[in-house]
Amino acid sequence: MQSFKCIGLVGRLASESTQYSLNRLVSFLTKQSVEVLMDEETSSAMPDCSLEIAARSELGARCDLIVVVGGDGSILSAARSLAGSKVKILGINRGRLGFLADISPDAVEYRMGEILDGQYFLEERFLLECQVFRDGQLISQGVAMNDVVLHPGKFIRMIEFELYVDDEFVCRQRSDGLIISSPTGSTAYALSGGGPIMHPNLNAVVMVPLYPHTLSSRPIVISGESKIRLAISEANNLNPHVTCDGQTHAVSQAGDEIEVMKCGRLAQLIHPKGHSFFETCRSKLGWASDTAGD
Amino acid sequence: MQSFKCIGLVGRLASESTQYSLNRLVSFLTKQSVEVLMDEETSSAMPDCSLEIAARSELGARCDLIVVVGGDGSILSAARSLAGSKVKILGINRGRLGFLADISPDAVEYRMGEILDGQYFLEERFLLECQVFRDGQLISQGVAMNDVVLHPGKFIRMIEFELYVDDEFVCRQRSDGLIISSPTGSTAYALSGGGPIMHPNLNAVVMVPLYPHTLSSRPIVISGESKIRLAISEANNLNPHVTCDGQTHAVSQAGDEIEVMKCGRLAQLIHPKGHSFFETCRSKLGWASDTAGD
Amino acid sequence: MQSFKCIGLVGRLASESTQYSLNRLVSFLTKQSVEVLMDEETSSAMPDCSLEIAARSELGARCDLIVVVGGDGSILSAARSLAGSKVKILGINRGRLGFLADISPDAVEYRMGEILDGQYFLEERFLLECQVFRDGQLISQGVAMNDVVLHPGKFIRMIEFELYVDDEFVCRQRSDGLIISSPTGSTAYALSGGGPIMHPNLNAVVMVPLYPHTLSSRPIVISGESKIRLAISEANNLNPHVTCDGQTHAVSQAGDEIEVMKCGRLAQLIHPKGHSFFETCRSKLGWASDTAGD
Amino acid sequence: MQSFKCIGLVGRLASESTQYSLNRLVSFLTKQSVEVLMDEETSSAMPDCSLEIAARSELGARCDLIVVVGGDGSILSAARSLAGSKVKILGINRGRLGFLADISPDAVEYRMGEILDGQYFLEERFLLECQVFRDGQLISQGVAMNDVVLHPGKFIRMIEFELYVDDEFVCRQRSDGLIISSPTGSTAYALSGGGPIMHPNLNAVVMVPLYPHTLSSRPIVISGESKIRLAISEANNLNPHVTCDGQTHAVSQAGDEIEVMKCGRLAQLIHPKGHSFFETCRSKLGWASDTAGD
Repeated sequence: MQSFKCIGLVGRLASESTQYSLNRLVSFLTKQSVEVLMDEETSSAMPDCSLEIAARSELGARCDLIVVVGGDGSILSAARSLAGSKVKILGINRGRLGFLADISPDAVEYRMGEILDGQYFLEERFLLECQVFRDGQLISQGVAMNDVVLHPGKFIRMIEFELYVDDEFVCRQRSDGLIISSPTGSTAYALSGGGPIMHPNLNAVVMVPLYPHTLSSRPIVISGESKIRLAISEANNLNPHVTCDGQTHAVSQAGDEIEVMKCGRLAQLIHPKGHSFFETCRSKLGWASDTAGD
Repeated sequence: MQSFKCIGLVGRLASESTQYSLNRLVSFLTKQSVEVLMDEETSSAMPDCSLEIAARSELGARCDLIVVVGGDGSILSAARSLAGSKVKILGINRGRLGFLADISPDAVEYRMGEILDGQYFLEERFLLECQVFRDGQLISQGVAMNDVVLHPGKFIRMIEFELYVDDEFVCRQRSDGLIISSPTGSTAYALSGGGPIMHPNLNAVVMVPLYPHTLSSRPIVISGESKIRLAISEANNLNPHVTCDGQTHAVSQAGDEIEVMKCGRLAQLIHPKGHSFFETCRSKLGWASDTAGD
Repeated sequence: MQSFKCIGLVGRLASESTQYSLNRLVSFLTKQSVEVLMDEETSSAMPDCSLEIAARSELGARCDLIVVVGGDGSILSAARSLAGSKVKILGINRGRLGFLADISPDAVEYRMGEILDGQYFLEERFLLECQVFRDGQLISQGVAMNDVVLHPGKFIRMIEFELYVDDEFVCRQRSDGLIISSPTGSTAYALSGGGPIMHPNLNAVVMVPLYPHTLSSRPIVISGESKIRLAISEANNLNPHVTCDGQTHAVSQAGDEIEVMKCGRLAQLIHPKGHSFFETCRSKLGWASDTAGD
Repeated sequence: MQSFKCIGLVGRLASESTQYSLNRLVSFLTKQSVEVLMDEETSSAMPDCSLEIAARSELGARCDLIVVVGGDGSILSAARSLAGSKVKILGINRGRLGFLADISPDAVEYRMGEILDGQYFLEERFLLECQVFRDGQLISQGVAMNDVVLHPGKFIRMIEFELYVDDEFVCRQRSDGLIISSPTGSTAYALSGGGPIMHPNLNAVVMVPLYPHTLSSRPIVISGESKIRLAISEANNLNPHVTCDGQTHAVSQAGDEIEVMKCGRLAQLIHPKGHSFFETCRSKLGWASDTAGD
């Protein structure tokens, strides 16, 4: 008996290697006793595909597994749109070595076979919800799996804001901005910014200041249950942007308040059996090799 | 009705300012309807003290509140010896501005009055337990509130060890050592070492490598429920030391295994009402003032 | 005999405190045997000023001292426009505590008196020259006292470029950009970015990567005589910006080459006697106070 | 005509791979028209060696080239003992990938042939001199090619000292110590400590604080002509150690003064033609590979 009854396929557009892997997947899956649907947007790049085509929302409703062919960015996008449903997400890696998409394209048939047999590792990842308020009214809201970033919009400009956690004042900060990252995002932009690595199963959020004016500013890890609030200072003469997973989501103005907290919906990621978060760290971060001088 | 029936007094030895604060405390408390005991070791520096004297273990058994006069180090010491009992610990600050001892000596009577009236903020802090195994036998064990540190014992010498979390291999590391810190310790040595600040209520532990040979090594935050294991490599030609809160606790040798995990016993700290962890950060870390150039 | 015969006054616009300090300066200087000129742009904010008015270029030609009232930004601007002439520049601080403008507004008369008596500390600071080439043609050039910064123009976007020093390949870098800083700029943006402090008398330039993808990327200090070249990779699908002292100076495109080297012209800064670079560091960077926990 | 008339051979002891490379060197060199001497200490591990044996000091006096087989540590040791003479030093790498010993053991004959033909790259590296004074008397002095390090001798103990540059007060520091590094040493211990990479031709020294108590402490780069002075505070209740290239050189006490400045003698290193400092950085520091997440 198969673990999954209906599988949806999603691929990064405009990538030959993705189409090659999708075709291998289609060949393999259509020989199994599963229903296979093709994502509508993805199908536009695969004119010869004979699969039934479905919009993204329909995939979420009908499938119990979505296979995403692409990089971590493709998985992030799928996870944001499917969070809260029970559909599981699996990534075939067609980007640089990824933290999320971790099945090698060479092993597609072998790994898919295992997974259909129920041999996989499931993990739930939480997402962040971001809301922007102006004069007390919600004017914008977004969801991020990696991070919510407040930044000046223009480069080489500082922004000033007040930071609160659970309505307790933390600090007034002048900086290039702030990264608010989930454990999932801790190995992405937040890591370049000097944040710690957080294990995916940790119920925590890290706030990493971007080039803070105050040299003693440091990344702060708080509980995943806490609510973060940023109050954009009246002193700002520019309009700080808010991005979710690197996509601009809102342009704020002085006096606005931005709230970030854990989203109620979880994403269901699956990995091949034997998956190890730390193994991915070792590969991606080059921990195996000594680097500093003797 | 008083919140506390029996109060024990502990002070940092050989400090005039501590004795001054202890005397003010004694004057104040003996006028309240509470029993007051003096710690035996502390009493040696206070020859004129007329209070009943008790050993540290008796203090733990009889008191419901211990007031520690000193710096964060004095609180750490009291917390290690009293963890697991229900006795609460309060700090009067006589060191440099502290994260744990946060009552100003000028406000002793005022703050103690509030606290006896039940106006205080209680928080439970977890401790770390550290066990050293040789040939499978437990040869040493210790408790730390801030951090367990593995280091070479001698300076300018690297050690090599393997790191495991929940029996999963993380990495083989060559470095000056490793800090394993609780949230309480995250604002102490781990912070100098580049670790993040962790909120005291977070159920997490951070591992901060000391001057790692591999430049991509980063602090890693894991769940407070995880078990850390360090295997001292056979390649070492020196004897790495293990310290708990900066006190040497064991000298290891090649082949030893060191396990660190959350201790079952909690310390009960109390703070004056209105206490704010972030306020202490702002004061101690100078967040109020801009420092980098314009 | 006065050290200076003709003094030009320049002030940050739209600042009441600057006007107050300028008025005090005018009162004091007009009683001394020196000629005093007012900068044309500055005079627009001082309608009652009876001084002779001169354009910036005329100030450079006629004066032997320019007094700038404002913050470090005002000094940077004056230094860029006056570099190469023999005119000396003095700063009265009306911004946040500054590294360059270091005379306190309260001590204007006292310090100016000393300086007119020849009691001052003179230092020459070098500037950086930045040239952008497209298809081998120079399309843009600028001068910076603090830093030349290459950045993506938009936030949360990586740029890719190749870095050469004296025509030797250094690395291909994917990052948020690169700060190229003089010693003067090492206490400004480069410091927030993790660069070292460089003593003002050092003949060196530091290159600080902005949030590099490769975690082992580090600031690199090279000789002030070296020529830096950045080749914008063809892979970029955006237009990296080049800024000089935070002012956008050019928008580059794939294939462009950007050269940065020491400018032939020096700026002549003067400080009150007893000036100490390290004293400024201690004040600005809060070195006096302990911050990490006990 | 050969570039070198008399070549001395030095090897790291107790290493089979070193002996193998030494034997290959001996075979090759004895067929060339050069005189070849074997270092006395090294010869003890090579009983069958038929070469003339000479003490280290005699090597310095008679040879014009010393070939060192080993790691960077072996080169450092040879350079310290030969600095000031005109003898050139070449390294055959038998350690981990090195910054100094950069000839691959596989290419010994080929590269030695080139070098004997005069095809090599010569660079002069300066050394640091370290002097310890007690009550105004010089009590100890040493030489370092990489770095002079002040540290507490014991771990998890802070030391307190005052730092002066050219007799100007810089700061009073509480930390685990201080690394004073030449450009040569900037890719060794100082790099693990957060210091910048400095190009070998830079006339500069960097001071890197070890886990400073003050979070705004940063590496400071000063001119190679400056004199650094450390005054050990009376407050210390331990005896800070001073090491030169990782070898303990002196144990200081409260009140001592330690002076570090550029040594008058230079070391003459040679590299194969085509040598590139930045190429070594790319290999050793893994700059080629992306590491942070997508």
